[in-house]
Amino acid sequence: MTDLSSVLSRADQNLPASLERLFGFVRIRSISTDPAFKDDCRKAAEWLAADLREIGFEASVHDTAGHPMVVGHHPGAVADAPHVLFYGHYDVQPVDPVELWEDDPFDPKVKDLGGGRKIITGRGSSDDKGQLLTFVEACRAYKDVHGSLPVRVTVLFEGEEESGSPSLQPFLEANATELKADYALVCDTGMWDADTPAITASLRGLVGEEIIVTAANRDLHSGMYGGAAANPIQILSKILAGLHDETGRVTLEGFYDGVEETPANIKAAWEKLTGGRNDFLDEVGLSELAGEKGRSLLELIWARPTCEINGISGGYAGQGFKTVIASKASAKISFRLVGHQDPEKIRDSFRAYVQSRLPADCSVEFLKHGGSPAIQLAYDSPVLTKAKTALSEEWQKPALVVGVGGSIPIVGDFQNMLGMESLLVGFGLSDDRVHSPNEKYDLKSFHKGIRSWARIMAALAG
Amino acid sequence: MTDLSSVLSRADQNLPASLERLFGFVRIRSISTDPAFKDDCRKAAEWLAADLREIGFEASVHDTAGHPMVVGHHPGAVADAPHVLFYGHYDVQPVDPVELWEDDPFDPKVKDLGGGRKIITGRGSSDDKGQLLTFVEACRAYKDVHGSLPVRVTVLFEGEEESGSPSLQPFLEANATELKADYALVCDTGMWDADTPAITASLRGLVGEEIIVTAANRDLHSGMYGGAAANPIQILSKILAGLHDETGRVTLEGFYDGVEETPANIKAAWEKLTGGRNDFLDEVGLSELAGEKGRSLLELIWARPTCEINGISGGYAGQGFKTVIASKASAKISFRLVGHQDPEKIRDSFRAYVQSRLPADCSVEFLKHGGSPAIQLAYDSPVLTKAKTALSEEWQKPALVVGVGGSIPIVGDFQNMLGMESLLVGFGLSDDRVHSPNEKYDLKSFHKGIRSWARIMAALAG
Repeated sequence: MTDLSSVLSRADQNLPASLERLFGFVRIRSISTDPAFKDDCRKAAEWLAADLREIGFEASVHDTAGHPMVVGHHPGAVADAPHVLFYGHYDVQPVDPVELWEDDPFDPKVKDLGGGRKIITGRGSSDDKGQLLTFVEACRAYKDVHGSLPVRVTVLFEGEEESGSPSLQPFLEANATELKADYALVCDTGMWDADTPAITASLRGLVGEEIIVTAANRDLHSGMYGGAAANPIQILSKILAGLHDETGRVTLEGFYDGVEETPANIKAAWEKLTGGRNDFLDEVGLSELAGEKGRSLLELIWARPTCEINGISGGYAGQGFKTVIASKASAKISFRLVGHQDPEKIRDSFRAYVQSRLPADCSVEFLKHGGSPAIQLAYDSPVLTKAKTALSEEWQKPALVVGVGGSIPIVGDFQNMLGMESLLVGFGLSDDRVHSPNEKYDLKSFHKGIRSWARIMAALAG
Repeated sequence: MTDLSSVLSRADQNLPASLERLFGFVRIRSISTDPAFKDDCRKAAEWLAADLREIGFEASVHDTAGHPMVVGHHPGAVADAPHVLFYGHYDVQPVDPVELWEDDPFDPKVKDLGGGRKIITGRGSSDDKGQLLTFVEACRAYKDVHGSLPVRVTVLFEGEEESGSPSLQPFLEANATELKADYALVCDTGMWDADTPAITASLRGLVGEEIIVTAANRDLHSGMYGGAAANPIQILSKILAGLHDETGRVTLEGFYDGVEETPANIKAAWEKLTGGRNDFLDEVGLSELAGEKGRSLLELIWARPTCEINGISGGYAGQGFKTVIASKASAKISFRLVGHQDPEKIRDSFRAYVQSRLPADCSVEFLKHGGSPAIQLAYDSPVLTKAKTALSEEWQKPALVVGVGGSIPIVGDFQNMLGMESLLVGFGLSDDRVHSPNEKYDLKSFHKGIRSWARIMAALAG
C-alpha cells in the first residue's frame, strides 16, 4: 500500500469519470429544508450508499425523524491501521432566486473561464457534494490500484446540515459505538486561496444570551416622567457599553480563563498572510481593526474570544418620533470562545455582571441561546503534522494552519459525544458562492482535492 | 364691574343651563383625526361661534387647510383694560375601543359616584370642551350681571389640537395682528388634586434627534468578522452610555447653559407636596428616582433638563438568535429643556459629541425631530400673582405653581409668533381618562372652574 504515485496517477485517469459521478450526484435535488424535496434527499442518500458499495464499503441508509443518514465501513488493508470517520453532507441549500443563476443549478457542467481556470457549476458542486466526493474518489483510486484502503474508514453522510441537523445528535448518540473512530476527517471548509491549502485547527465556541430589561410596568410619556423614571434603554446601553474596556478587552470576570496565546510561529504565519493589510475588512467598507488592540486581523477572528451585540430593541423605532420611555429594552449578545473557555462559566459571569448593573427597582430576564466550547486541535498533534505535509506536497506550497471564527456544530458533537478530534481539510474557495446563486467548485479543487485525500490517507497510515 | 359676588352667584344659578350647553357641545362628534367626522368638526366650530355671539362676542368661523378656527372678540367694558387671548380646542380624540365605554361617549350625562362626587361623562367632557366652556360660561355670567366683561377678550378655538395642529402656525402668522393680546389664557391643564388648584408656569422644551450609525456596508456573520469588524450597536451603546455621568447629569458640552436653579420657596412647596414620597413612580412599578442625584421628584420632572433615549434598534431582534454583526444601528434621543437652554446649540453639541465618539471608518446620519425652547413664566409676574390669589380664594386652598414636564406647542407658538406669555390654568384631574375610554370631567371642576375664571378676570382687571 505504499505505492502512492500509482494511486495519484489513477486519480488523474479517473477524473473524467469522477466528474460524471459528481454531475449525477448534483443532479439530485436534495434540498433538505423544503419538504417538497424529501424524496430527492433519500435518492441522494441511496446514490451515495450505492457508490460506496462499488468501492468496497459496507454501506447502508439509516432512517431518522428527518432525512436519512448514510453510514459506510471499510476495514482497510491492515487491521491495526488508524481508523478515521469521514463526515460530509449530501443536502444542499435552496436555489432561490433561481433567475439569478447563469446555468441550471441542477444540470452541472464544466465551464472554462479562460486563463486555465475551469469550474464545475451547480448547487452543491462545492457545498458539500463536490467536497465530499473528493474523499470518496480518493478511496476509489486506492481501491482501483490496491484493492483496499490504507486506513480503516467509516463514513457518515447526513442530509440535514443545511437545515439545522436536527437528527444528528440523536443519531450519534444511538450509534456511538459504530461511529467512534480514532479521529474524524471533515471536508466542508476552504483553502486560504486558490493555490494555498489550509487545515482548520481551531473553531471558536459560542455562548448566546438575550437580556430583557424591565423598568416601569408600562410605557411612559417622557415629558411626564423623563428625568425621574428609570429608562431601560439607557440602563441597557450602560450595561452593553461596559462589556468592553478601552483596549477592546471583555471586562467580565474570569472571561479570559482558559484562553491561551497562539504560538509565535503560527501568529507570524498569519501576519505574513495579510501582509499587515486588512483587505478582508476593506471588502465590507471598513478599514480599522475593531476589538482587542495589539492583535492582528487573523488572530482576532481565529484565535481570540469576543463579545458581540447581535441585536437590540426598545421603545419606538418606527418613522418619525415618539417621546416615550419604554417599559422594556432587550439585546442579544454572543460570545465567541477559544481555547478552554467554559461556556457556562461565561454565561454565569455575564448574568452576574448584568445583575450588578441593574437599579434596584428594575428587573432583567435572561434567555439562553446555546453554548458550545471552542475546538482546538493541538498545533503539534501528529495527525495535523501528517496532513500538513501531505497537503504541502500536493499543492507544492506550505499548507496553512488556520482558524474559523464561527462554529461548525458537527465538530463539537464529535468531540463531546464521541470523544474524537476532527481534522478539517477542504478545498472550497471564497468565491464559490455557497448558499448563493451560481455556486461553483473549481475543477482544480476537485481534482487536487482527490489527490490530497489520497496523500493524507497514505500519510495517516504511515 | 366690581361686583364679583353677583357674578359668582349668577354662575351658580346658570349651572344647570351651562351643563345643558356642555352636553350639546359634547354630542357633536368632532374627532379631528378621522376624515369621516369633518362635518362634525365644522359643526362644533359653528356651535361655538353661535354661543359666543349670544354673549356679546363678535365671532366668526375661519376656514383653514384643515378644520376651521373660531375667533371671537369682546371689547370689554373698559377701553384700556388688559387684553387677553383665551385658547382652547373643540376637537376630541377618537373613542376606540368603543366597547370599553360604560356610557355612550357622545351622549353625556351627570353620574353620581356617591360621597358627594359627581362627574360629567363623555368624550371631550374634560379635554377640552368642558375646560374651554368654563371660561365661556364665566363670560356669560359676567355678561348676565354686568352686560359686559371686565377685560378685553379675544378667543381662539382650534379644531386640530388632537391631530398635530397643522393649520395653527399658518393661521397665527396670517392673523397675528388680530390675535395679539397682552397675554394668553390657556385652559387645557389640570389641578394638583381634586381640592388644590394649580397654575402651570413652566413647560419643558424639546430637542429630538435620531442617529443612524453605519459600520460595514452590509450585515456580517459574527463568526467570520466578530472581533475585527466594527459593531455599530456596540458603538451606539458607548455613545448613549456616555450621555450621562455617574451623578445623572448630561455630559454634553454647554448643556446646562441657561439652566437656572428653581427658587427655594418653590422647591420647598414642591417637596411638601410629595412629602418626600415617590407615589408618582410607585404607580408605574418603580421606586427609585432616576436622573440627576440630589433633586426631588417634582423638581426633576418640572424644572430640570433631561436626555432620554426613546427608541433603539439594530441587528436581529426577532425570536431566537442570529449571529449577525449589523451594518447599521439607530436610536432616537430627546432632550427636555428648561430655562433658557438653546435647542439648536444643544443639537449642535450633541452632534459634535456623537461624531467625536465615532471610529474613523464608521459614519453617522442625523435626523432632526423638532426643537423648541422651554417656557417659563416669571415666578414673580403680576399676572401669575393675581391668578394665584383668585384661585386660592375660590378653592379656599393656596393655589400651586407647578411645571409640566412635557411641551404644549401652542404656548411656544404664542411666545414665538405673537410675543405673548401664557397663563395656564385648568381644572382637569389625573383620573379624567383623557384620550381613553370613559373620559369624564368632575362636576366640581366644571362648576368651580367657571367661578375661577370669573375671579381671574376680575383680578386681571383690577
